[in-house]
This record gives sequence, C-alpha cells and structure tokens, in this order.
Amino acid sequence: MKILDKVNYPQDVKKLNLKELTQLAQEIRELIIEVVSKNGGHLAPSLGVVELTLALLKVFDPAFDRLIWDVGHQAYAYKILTGRKNRFHTLRKLGGISGFPKPEESPFDYFGVGHSSTSISAALGMAVARDLLKNSNKVVAIIGDGSMTAGLSYEGLNQAGGLGKDLVVILNDNEMSISKNVGALSSFLSRKLSSQWMIKFKKEVENFFKQIPKIGEDLLNYAKKSEDSLKSFFTPGILFEAFKFNYIGPVDGHKLDTLIDVFDQVKKLDVPVLIHVLTKKGKGYLPAEKNPTYFHGVGCFEPETGKATKIAGCNIPTYTEVFGNTLCELARKDSKIVAITAAMPEGTGLNKFAEEFPDRFFDVGICEQHAVTFAAGLAKEGFKPVVAIYSTFLQRAYDQIVHDVCLQNLPVVFCLDRGGLVGEDGPTHHGVFDLSYLSHIPNLILTAPKDEAELQLLLYTGLKSRRPFVLRYPRGRGVGVDLSNNFQELPIGEGELLKQGKDALVLGVGSRVYPCLEALEEITDYDVGMYNLRFIKPITKNLKEIIQNYDKLIVVEENVLIGGAGSIILDYLYTYNLLDKVNILKIGLPDRFIEHGSQAELRRKYLIDKEGIKKQILNFLRSC
Amino acid sequence: MKILDKVNYPQDVKKLNLKELTQLAQEIRELIIEVVSKNGGHLAPSLGVVELTLALLKVFDPAFDRLIWDVGHQAYAYKILTGRKNRFHTLRKLGGISGFPKPEESPFDYFGVGHSSTSISAALGMAVARDLLKNSNKVVAIIGDGSMTAGLSYEGLNQAGGLGKDLVVILNDNEMSISKNVGALSSFLSRKLSSQWMIKFKKEVENFFKQIPKIGEDLLNYAKKSEDSLKSFFTPGILFEAFKFNYIGPVDGHKLDTLIDVFDQVKKLDVPVLIHVLTKKGKGYLPAEKNPTYFHGVGCFEPETGKATKIAGCNIPTYTEVFGNTLCELARKDSKIVAITAAMPEGTGLNKFAEEFPDRFFDVGICEQHAVTFAAGLAKEGFKPVVAIYSTFLQRAYDQIVHDVCLQNLPVVFCLDRGGLVGEDGPTHHGVFDLSYLSHIPNLILTAPKDEAELQLLLYTGLKSRRPFVLRYPRGRGVGVDLSNNFQELPIGEGELLKQGKDALVLGVGSRVYPCLEALEEITDYDVGMYNLRFIKPITKNLKEIIQNYDKLIVVEENVLIGGAGSIILDYLYTYNLLDKVNILKIGLPDRFIEHGSQAELRRKYLIDKEGIKKQILNFLRSC
Repeated sequence: MKILDKVNYPQDVKKLNLKELTQLAQEIRELIIEVVSKNGGHLAPSLGVVELTLALLKVFDPAFDRLIWDVGHQAYAYKILTGRKNRFHTLRKLGGISGFPKPEESPFDYFGVGHSSTSISAALGMAVARDLLKNSNKVVAIIGDGSMTAGLSYEGLNQAGGLGKDLVVILNDNEMSISKNVGALSSFLSRKLSSQWMIKFKKEVENFFKQIPKIGEDLLNYAKKSEDSLKSFFTPGILFEAFKFNYIGPVDGHKLDTLIDVFDQVKKLDVPVLIHVLTKKGKGYLPAEKNPTYFHGVGCFEPETGKATKIAGCNIPTYTEVFGNTLCELARKDSKIVAITAAMPEGTGLNKFAEEFPDRFFDVGICEQHAVTFAAGLAKEGFKPVVAIYSTFLQRAYDQIVHDVCLQNLPVVFCLDRGGLVGEDGPTHHGVFDLSYLSHIPNLILTAPKDEAELQLLLYTGLKSRRPFVLRYPRGRGVGVDLSNNFQELPIGEGELLKQGKDALVLGVGSRVYPCLEALEEITDYDVGMYNLRFIKPITKNLKEIIQNYDKLIVVEENVLIGGAGSIILDYLYTYNLLDKVNILKIGLPDRFIEHGSQAELRRKYLIDKEGIKKQILNFLRSC
Repeated sequence: MKILDKVNYPQDVKKLNLKELTQLAQEIRELIIEVVSKNGGHLAPSLGVVELTLALLKVFDPAFDRLIWDVGHQAYAYKILTGRKNRFHTLRKLGGISGFPKPEESPFDYFGVGHSSTSISAALGMAVARDLLKNSNKVVAIIGDGSMTAGLSYEGLNQAGGLGKDLVVILNDNEMSISKNVGALSSFLSRKLSSQWMIKFKKEVENFFKQIPKIGEDLLNYAKKSEDSLKSFFTPGILFEAFKFNYIGPVDGHKLDTLIDVFDQVKKLDVPVLIHVLTKKGKGYLPAEKNPTYFHGVGCFEPETGKATKIAGCNIPTYTEVFGNTLCELARKDSKIVAITAAMPEGTGLNKFAEEFPDRFFDVGICEQHAVTFAAGLAKEGFKPVVAIYSTFLQRAYDQIVHDVCLQNLPVVFCLDRGGLVGEDGPTHHGVFDLSYLSHIPNLILTAPKDEAELQLLLYTGLKSRRPFVLRYPRGRGVGVDLSNNFQELPIGEGELLKQGKDALVLGVGSRVYPCLEALEEITDYDVGMYNLRFIKPITKNLKEIIQNYDKLIVVEENVLIGGAGSIILDYLYTYNLLDKVNILKIGLPDRFIEHGSQAELRRKYLIDKEGIKKQILNFLRSC
C-alpha cells in the first residue's frame, strides 16, 4: 500500500516517521509527474521542493501558522498534502485545481499569488498583524533565489529586518529563476562564489597575520584551521545579516532529517531568520534535472522519456518564435538593436537573440522595473532597445513606462507576449489589462498585430518609429500565414479594411481579427465589413472616412472592456462627433478576474471565440 | 566681486582653486536660499549637495560624461552651474526652470527624473551603451540613501554588479529620505550601526584569538590596533561588495578637497564603484539643518528666520490635514485601523497618526510596491490598512494593487493625495493618470470627494466597505466647508444631485465640483444642473434615473481624458443604451504631459478652472 493513500491532510504527515516521509516524497513525485505529463504545468519547481514541503508540514501547522509560497508554482506537493490529492488530476483544468495558491480553493492557500516576490512583504504584514493581535502563530515565506532578485523582495527584507519581527524566510536556492539566475546577488549566493569569498577572506587573514612580526607559519596554519568561526561573515550570511536577518545555512534541501531539525530549531526563535536551502530544480525526474528550464513550465509530455507529446500536423510557429526570429533578422542589419528580458529568455523567444548577439542581450532577472529604466538609458544613447516581457508582468513597470520612457519620449519597443487570455495559468497571468493600463499614457504608440506576419511588420515599424512603441500579441501559435520577407513600415495610426460590408463594420483587435472574419463568414443574413484596427493608439482620421459608411460598429478585443479598445473607439466617435450617428457594440472581457482553463474554453465561455462573436454580433444586429 | 558672477558653465568651475570653490559654495547657497524662499522648492536636498556638485563638475565633464541625478530635487546647484544661473529666479514658475532635471530644458540634464531610484538603472543602460559604442565617457549616478531603499535601486545594483561595468554610484547618505530614513539598510549605513558592527567584529576577533593558546593579551591588543585592514568588511562596504561594487567611504561630503581627490582617483577605475558620501541635509542654512524634513520641499519663507511666509486670513485646512486628523479620530474607535506610508509621514498627513498610534503606523521607506503587498498581508489578517501614497507615486504599485489586493478582494483603503495637477513639481508629479490606471481593475471601488467633509465620509465608508477602496483628492486646501462630526456611510456607487437644471447636467469629479458650481452660477443663459459623481467606480443605476431628464451631459475631471471619468460615463451611457439620447462634453486634461506651474495657472491654461469650465460649457451648449 502506498503511504500517500492514507495521507490527505497535514496532520497525516505529522504522524509519519523519516522512512515513511522518504517514501512519501517518492510517491508525491510520481503523482506530480503523472498529472503534469497529462495537464502540463510547473513540473521542475514543484519537484524541487517535495522534501521542503514535507518538512514544513512536519514542523509547522498550516491551519495555524502561515506558509506563504512565493510565485506559488512550486506548491503542487503542498496542494496534494492539504486536502486536494483526489482533485489533483484536475490541475489547471477549467473548474479544477489552480496551478497557484488560491484562497478561494482552499483555506490552506492562505495568500493568493502567481507573480513573483510578494511573499516577504505579505508575510511581514501577517507577522505584524500577529503581534498586534498577540497571537503566537509562525509566519513562513518560501521564496526562490530568482524571486529574490526582484526589488519587491528587497523592500520587504529591508522593513522586516528593521522591525525585527518573528518571521521566517526560506530561501529556496536552486540557482535558477526560470532560466539560469543572473546578477551579482545570484553569484553571491552560489557556492562557487562563496568559496571565492573564502579565498578573499583567507588572503585578508593572511595579510593581517603577516603584519604581526612575532607570528610565523604556525599561526597562519592554525588560523586556516579555525576559519569556521569567522566563516559566517563570508558566506551569503553577511548579506542577510546586513538586513538584520539571522542567517542559517546553506542546508541541503533534499535531506528530510536536516530540514526537520533546522525547522524545529527555528520554530523556537522569535526574530527574523533566513534559512538558505539548496535544492535541485526537477529533483527526482531525470529529464527535468537535466533540462530544468524546459521543464519549468511544460506542456504535455511522455512521462517515461520526457519527450513532448506531439500535436499532429502542427508546424505553425508561435508568436513567440516569430518574434524571436524576426528580431534576430532585423538585428543582423542594425547594430543598434538590443534586447532585454526579465528572466525569461525562452518564454519571450529571445534565446536565439541571446545566442547570436550575446553582447546586445540583457537578462536582468525578475526585475521588470529595472528592465524598463535600463532600456530608457540605452535608448537615450541612441540604441533601439526591445523589451520583451509578458503583458501581465509588465504591469510591474507601469510607472517606469510613464516616467522614464514616455515622459522623455524615448524610443523603447515593448513586446508584450501573452496579451489576452493566457489559459491554464489563470487570473494572475492573463494579460487582459494592458490596453487599459497603456492607452492613456502620452506619447505611447499601442498596437496589436492580427497575425504573425503583421507582428513582423509592426516590430519593424516600431523600431523605425523612434517612439515608445508597444506590440501586444497572444500566447500560442500564429494563424499560419506566410511570413514577411520584405519588411516595410506600416503607417502609424492606420488599420486596414479587410472586407467591405453594408450593414455593419467590425473593428477587430489583434488576436480577435481572424475569429471575427470566421464569424462573418457564417453570418449570411447580414453584410458585415471587417476592419483590422492594428493601432489602438493613435487612431488617425482615416478610420473616420471608413466608418462614415456604417451606422453600426462592433469592436472586438481580448481585453477588459473598461479602458480597452472599445472605449477608445467610443472616445474616437465622441471626438469626431459621431456618437449619435452610429450604434456600437463592444465585445470583450467583463469587469472581473477571469479564472483558469484552456484558452479555447475561456474564449468560448466569455463569448470571444468565433461562435461567441457570431452570437453577439447577430444579437446586436437583430436588436438594432 | 562674487565668484559666481563669472561662473556660468562647468568649464568655469574647472578653473577655480579650492579657496574659490569654497567661496562659490557659499554664494550658491545664498542664491538657492534667496530663490527658494520666494518660489518654494526643495531647499534642504539642494543645500546638502553643493560641495558634491562642485567636486563633480571639477572632476567630470557633464557635456561628455553622464551625471545622472536620482529624484533630481537636489540639482539646483547643478542647474545654476550649467548655464541656468540667470534664469534660476524662474525656478518652478510657469515657463521657468523646472525643479527637476529636464532634458528639454538643457542638454546638461541628461536624463529626466522626478520619481526616486531610477538613476542606477538608467546609468547602467548608458554604461552598457558606452561600451557597445567603444566610447570612454564616465557614467555617474548620484543617489540618496532614501532612494536606495527602493527595490528599483537594488535591481539596478544587482545587474550592474553582475555585468561589472565601469559605473560610478555616489551614495549621498544624509540618513534621510524625505523624513528620517527607515529599515534595516538605513541603520546598516548609519555610522552608529557601523560601530555596532565593529563591536561584533572585535568580539569575533577576540574569540578567534582566544582559541589560540600561545597568544595572550599582547596579540589581542595588537589586533585591535590593526583592525583597519579588516575594517572594510564590517562597514557598509560589505553590502555593496556583495553586489560586486568596489566600496569607497565614508567620505565627508562637505570637504571639497577630499571629494575632488576621491573623484579623481575613481575616474581612473573601470569597474563598478560605490562612493559612500556623508552629507548634511540643509547644510549651511541653520533653519534647514535643524528641520530638514520641513525644509525638504518648502513653500515661501522669510530667508532670515526660515519662518513660513504668512498667507493672510487662510485657516482652511488642507486635504492632507483633514485626512490625517480624521484617520486619527476613526482609529481611536477602531483598533484594526493601521496606516502605511512610503517615506512620507508628513506629506501624507500621517505624522499625527504616527505619534498617537506608533504601533499601528508603518513607514516602509520609498517602497510603494512593498507598502501595498504589506497592506494586503495585514488585511488578510483582519486589519483595516490605510495606504497613503501620492497619486503619482502609487503608479509604482499598479501590479500589487491588481495582483495582491484586488484579485483577492482584500479590504485595503488607498488614500491618494495629490490627485490631479500638483503644480510646481510638474509632469513627473502630476497625479493625472490615477482614474485611468485604476478604473479598469476588478473589485476596486474608486472615489473622489468634492470637499474635505466628503473626504471624511468617504474614508469612513471605505473602511466600512471591506473592499479595495480608493479615495483620490487634490493637493492643497479644502474648500472651507464645516467638517463632519457625525460619520455615516455613503451608499456605494451613488453620487449626489447638487442642483437641478433643465438644459444640461454637469457631472463633476472631486476637486472640479466646486469650480463647476461657481461656473454654473455665472451661466445665466442656460439652466444647468450639477451632480457630484463621487464614485467613479462603480456607478449605480441611480445615475441613470437622474440623467434621463437631460439630453446634454458634461463631465468635468482633473485627469487625462483617456480612460478617465468622461470615458467611464461614455461607457455607462453605452451600457444603458443612452448614447443616442444625450449629447456629451468631456472636460479634462489632454493626451500630453503637463508642464510645471502653479495649480491655478495650469488649471487656467487647460481650461479646467471656473473660467475655463464656463467657457467650455457655453461653447458646448451654444453648439448643440
């Protein structure tokens, strides 16, 4: 019988001995691999923290203590062990278990998360609350070394250390964010550099002793043997001690007995403690250990080999791939093009650029704010920085876009992958606010290509424009059109009329243009025209000339309706005094957070796929 | 004759000897005090860096090197010495010299700024660009210890250290941000704590030596004498060395010869260097030295005494004061109310709360992101956090508002002071985007009080609502109404009809309600009604009933028109199918960044003061 069969809740974990826990770790890994191979998901992060999760549940009580996972994509074992084992096969499915901690799903998911580096700040809030309430629960933030590169973490550490609260931060150090971790901090944390620090220290000690004439080789040798007592000053501890955290580590994150022992000791303390735990991303599954970046967030795969499950006959490239390839092509002819990503060279498609132009590629870590201001500095010096960040993550750099780029009208091109519904990653990751948070910023040009070939031309146009310029495109494959091999600038602010009509005109935005066209093919009772908006901002007068032939307009977008393209078009009609001349229908996403599920399911549910668009257009035309 | 009379540009500074420079520093201080006493401005920060500025100009060449000021409110001496001495008396005046570095104003203002902590990121971009271009200019970021608390600085340091570029960061440490600096880092930097570090170090060394039996007191004493060689490990240097910066300091920031010497040495290096400079905020002007927080950003004052110039007969409290007092009043009756500010207890009016409820008050440093996520943690535990941050600075926490607060629907009350045109601080500080960047976030309630009494009721309502709740109010004095002494909840989503009319209805937002009322008093040809919108989101059905009596609507707000209240009302009309039934006029700010000038001047220029509103309404009514 499996141990896992009798384990449902944290109290079941507490009863197990070390041998049973070790076996349980293995069984949990098997379950995670089985489910993720079918559903896709964050495999490598979750495999890396199985022992850590078990040790936490053995020592702490998540119904009383607060276990706050950073990012949360590593919480699969935690979900399995907190009442959701039997539903775990629904992971990331519509109506199923979320891939991230989600308070609505379980009280054990105490704080909702999906973006990185929030855990220390949130945990500190909880620790302060506990002390004000004179409660005695422990608060534990579990954060990766990648997440530690973000400024938010630093801000949290700084206040936490200043307040000196009883707070445990577990630094889950696997030397990775999603890809290989970057920056000074990263190498500071890593073992190799610690030993460099030790060398520096030793040299310093040697110099110190050499100044003391009476002492010879003997003392120096003795000092070398005794170095442990001073060692903590020269390990990563010194950094966290600067933040007034008590540093413990490094601890082997796969040794259950050590972890449990350390947590037991730490539980008795009432000061800020940072436990530096070393783990291996993908631990226990060889394909993931070998390629943790690929298996960070992965689609379906064959569990025996780790090979991706083939999707029959699909060789249309993704928007991500087209972006990456096109940027390389353009960069070959223009040495001023530089590319910046925030810890996601693979996710954004910049990995090829990184290989071909290592000197012009910058992975800044999970630092969206810095990415944008750094790009502004490069732009100021005449470079053409392309900042590739997912729509949802660029939210973190809103102020830098306003203050550092647009106010100075600097030519930074922002490539927002995952614009629109992202699918299984759910509400924390949907890129459905970007049109709203960007369209009101002065000087910014805001575009959405209808297909992968237009993405190429807009990228080219953006680089030529010498203005702040945003391209927003969806997650997933293109529509299968031929790619451009002859780049030309598209006129700023103008879209394209794809189909004439008599009864109404659809204004489609980006990924919704083709579904609209398909819907119109099935609408035979009415003669509806189709216009690819292409630019959400600015929209030039040429649209006025086109829409003057229509008394019914339908705007279709994959963005929240408030502040989205539909609202922009309303404003446009207002500006040109056309509000009383046309009837308008706005199709887009409602004013609520959208759950997880496949892109297709969600688009169906929210009536923005072909069928939904058709239905909404027909209802509108029939009611006019 | 004054030295300053013959100094206009950096090359003039280079010719001066130490004695002349010392005298020049004095003359510059006199000019700064004279102008700021008349115009208001950032006195204390600028007085603190006069020697630093002179030394920088003596050693570096700002026409070739890049001098990047963080925040930029300390750059008055720099402005005076880079061609703007004769225009300096126009500081912060409409059409005059900006209070911040502004590239449009001078090529010496190389990078525009106003918000904190952007300098390292921007400078790193420039350093990378220099190396790609194989140029040889130096890049110098000058950043305060307050700005160093922001995550953006840390993100910049992390990449800069990782890349190992030739980059100079001057840490201007005056132990202040705007108020006293906070957090672990702050005490780490401060001299008092350095000496605690030294004590810890000494103890460690003593223990180390005690392990060596052969050595007695002699060696220990010798070690104490030799401690300098190891000292750098135990000063703030260790922190920056962790980021792979070479640390130099602390250096007396008012000793010109030392500064020049250090900068001369550093100029020869080609690695990341951090120079830790100690300065005194307000240096050379006793009132400012004594009260650097008050003189951080100050209105007009008598230069001899430092006393504020009295404005005759004005005893109407500011919105800031009413907010601060009201929060104290409410907090006396509700122990769950806690207050959070990002380095601005005085600016936000929370200083009284801080005095009365020190355990429930949290100044997190210049860390807007952390402030919001920290508040989310407190809210999760049942507290009622009030986050008071200026509208423009909250831009930095957009993602945390979406992801940490609204997605979890946590009851955090955001009090956005300086909503609308802020006046003399100009485009980096105007709070004119908030309605646009907040209104599309699900679950959020967004309000703007028409006066200081309504601010009180909305604050009360917000705390009762148990929802994410925003109050947005302007800089400056209230309108002079009686304050509330009997708190009651206002119905969520409902405004108030202030005046019936027949010809049109004005929907006013927040600070624009009274100017609208005054404009209507002067519009005698038409009978125009007035409605205080109060809620920008949600807007309930009751508005529909009110506007059904009108065929002309005028929305007036102090926000950019795109995505603002006017657009929200357009959407509302769309939702209730009223677009073809009413004519609408949207009055607000255009799609451009607004310059600096007094609030009154700017409101006049952009036609949103009484006269402008009157004019726009009349034009509209006449053309309908």
